[in-house]
Amino acid sequence: MSGDVQKGLEGVVVAESNLSYIDGDEGRLIYRGHDIETLAAEATYEEVLYLLWYGSLPTAEELSSFSDTMAAERDIDDRVRSALADLAAADEAPMAALRTAVSMLSASDPEPDADPVEPASTLRKGRRITAKIPTILATYQRLRDGEEPVGPREDLSHAGNFLYMLTGAEPDDVAEETLDMALILHADHGLNASTFASMVVASTLADTYASVTAGVGALSGSLHGGANQDVMETLIEVDESAKDPIQWVKDAIDDGRKIPGFGHRVYNVKDPRAVILEEKSRQLGGASGERKWYDHANTIEAYLVDDAGFTEKGLAPNVDFYSGTVYYQLGIPVDMFTPIFAMSRVGGWVAHVLEQVEDNRIFRPRAKYTGETEAEWTPIEER
Amino acid sequence: MSGDVQKGLEGVVVAESNLSYIDGDEGRLIYRGHDIETLAAEATYEEVLYLLWYGSLPTAEELSSFSDTMAAERDIDDRVRSALADLAAADEAPMAALRTAVSMLSASDPEPDADPVEPASTLRKGRRITAKIPTILATYQRLRDGEEPVGPREDLSHAGNFLYMLTGAEPDDVAEETLDMALILHADHGLNASTFASMVVASTLADTYASVTAGVGALSGSLHGGANQDVMETLIEVDESAKDPIQWVKDAIDDGRKIPGFGHRVYNVKDPRAVILEEKSRQLGGASGERKWYDHANTIEAYLVDDAGFTEKGLAPNVDFYSGTVYYQLGIPVDMFTPIFAMSRVGGWVAHVLEQVEDNRIFRPRAKYTGETEAEWTPIEER
Repeated sequence: MSGDVQKGLEGVVVAESNLSYIDGDEGRLIYRGHDIETLAAEATYEEVLYLLWYGSLPTAEELSSFSDTMAAERDIDDRVRSALADLAAADEAPMAALRTAVSMLSASDPEPDADPVEPASTLRKGRRITAKIPTILATYQRLRDGEEPVGPREDLSHAGNFLYMLTGAEPDDVAEETLDMALILHADHGLNASTFASMVVASTLADTYASVTAGVGALSGSLHGGANQDVMETLIEVDESAKDPIQWVKDAIDDGRKIPGFGHRVYNVKDPRAVILEEKSRQLGGASGERKWYDHANTIEAYLVDDAGFTEKGLAPNVDFYSGTVYYQLGIPVDMFTPIFAMSRVGGWVAHVLEQVEDNRIFRPRAKYTGETEAEWTPIEER
Repeated sequence: MSGDVQKGLEGVVVAESNLSYIDGDEGRLIYRGHDIETLAAEATYEEVLYLLWYGSLPTAEELSSFSDTMAAERDIDDRVRSALADLAAADEAPMAALRTAVSMLSASDPEPDADPVEPASTLRKGRRITAKIPTILATYQRLRDGEEPVGPREDLSHAGNFLYMLTGAEPDDVAEETLDMALILHADHGLNASTFASMVVASTLADTYASVTAGVGALSGSLHGGANQDVMETLIEVDESAKDPIQWVKDAIDDGRKIPGFGHRVYNVKDPRAVILEEKSRQLGGASGERKWYDHANTIEAYLVDDAGFTEKGLAPNVDFYSGTVYYQLGIPVDMFTPIFAMSRVGGWVAHVLEQVEDNRIFRPRAKYTGETEAEWTPIEER
């Protein structure tokens, strides 16, 4: 096989992992043996982080101690705040601002010389980054809006504190629980491109800040984390067109447009996270009375799946198809959707980096060389 | 094969490439068909960048135009300078400072909305990053030393201008040519970990700044770019021990220490770059009269290769074994060695990112799941 080019590494197994398992035919996703439906219904994001990073569910005392430690690490220093202000003034994209800010966090890490193969220090660094990402994002959003940043509170949950910093007001229970659930759903998903990028960087024994910075960079790509924003922008376009959504989609397909939020390399059926988010989107619409975002999405899904041949092509709704409508109904700006994905997925990046350094081998694949091997050198004056 | 775990992706072919070819048995390295020995002797770093990025050697006019364009892009803006000053005050590691600064550069890119699959814009962004890295590094080094940064000059070569910004004085020809040659030698080397990290990030269609930032992060790892610094620190330790170098090495091996600068996954014989750098190190020692760094390295190499069984183990000197002594003899601080590696290798990162986006498939390998699949959920109060 070594002569064949494994493009995109599809189907190639590059590591063992105890973290998440995807059954793409059954539409099943588990973290360390627990179904995503159970975790979404029963756990908190902090509890899922503990499960991913320590390997088992915490007792009440362990969870409380872990959450308190992380809550105490939420604040960012003036250096990062000042860089965020500069980036906001330059109208930098939020994911790029997050990448720079996460990279900059290493300068204030209290253990700059920790050995990266020592799992405990990697876990502590990962925990600090995870604690600070919501603060970076909320600070950046408020600076962009010309508002004074709101500092973190230690007495709120990870999700609740983010919404508090974003809006300046304590969120209601529905908003807090909804975001918490979305964070759980996005926390890990096998060796997606951003997770794999983090692992490749970690395999050189670079420090955790370098690995997570690479993860943020990879997630910013339109083929990866950018899709939830694309879906919402599409739904807004549908709404503003005043066309019937099915007609809009028919016209878009006739125009050769790709409908975002459908299809996934590892799922042949509907993504289980999309199922949960669809129900949440429906609930939010019912509670607010503004059902159109759920309705537009649901109408388009039904048409594409039942009538437009998407099922035959193996194209089913993925996690991005309903997450956008959920965030939008929580009042979160559209270009913060991918950053919120990062705020969740950092849990998976750190968990996979931990697995990588515990049984490390540097990633150094090969390319099939297709160029010349005996080019003649012509001095520049004779070219 | 898909069930086997391809740890580190050793021997797995993940892409086609026209860029560089390594014959590990013959000790041969070529860029687009040209032997590294010819390039080191005949070309300039700018010429090699052109070769890698455009696919053929430039005419005198093309090279002049390319070099002028890049020289005009050397300056960094106040936002980056201010961040570097903050990082220097925090005593951030140079590679971490470089990672943050490269990430921050995207905020001043004149084409923030360029389509990443359009090769010309990727090349322009890559060129801008490549032009600015020496300025970032020299600025950072001077700020760390409490000195005023020296801005770039457009009339000097890439290598010469870096040395000028670092020291505040125009370099002599030997220093400029030596650094230029070192930049050529390090510019590309197949799918090493930092290049591969850049490709994984680029495969999501993230922008070039995200890809190069990941490359810097990966190169900072001690298993990758950090080795040239390790070699020099070892030679300094040998020198300060006042022991005979062979005795020092014998004692070090008895103590279970690993001697850095030996062995490489893709070479079974002496790295051709090490051959060139060894000769340069010898010349520099001869010219200055301070031959001890070359002598220590050469004595240690001869002992390990001829008498200590390294040859039987397939351990030959790699590029890092002599590059450190070369930089050290140019008066470059030891912890700038890896940043100089980055300043060169960015050429390869950009070239491979160009190849990746021209025929893209997102990297999404698989993990072999070794964890539980049916864990029982116990409510937290019952744990």
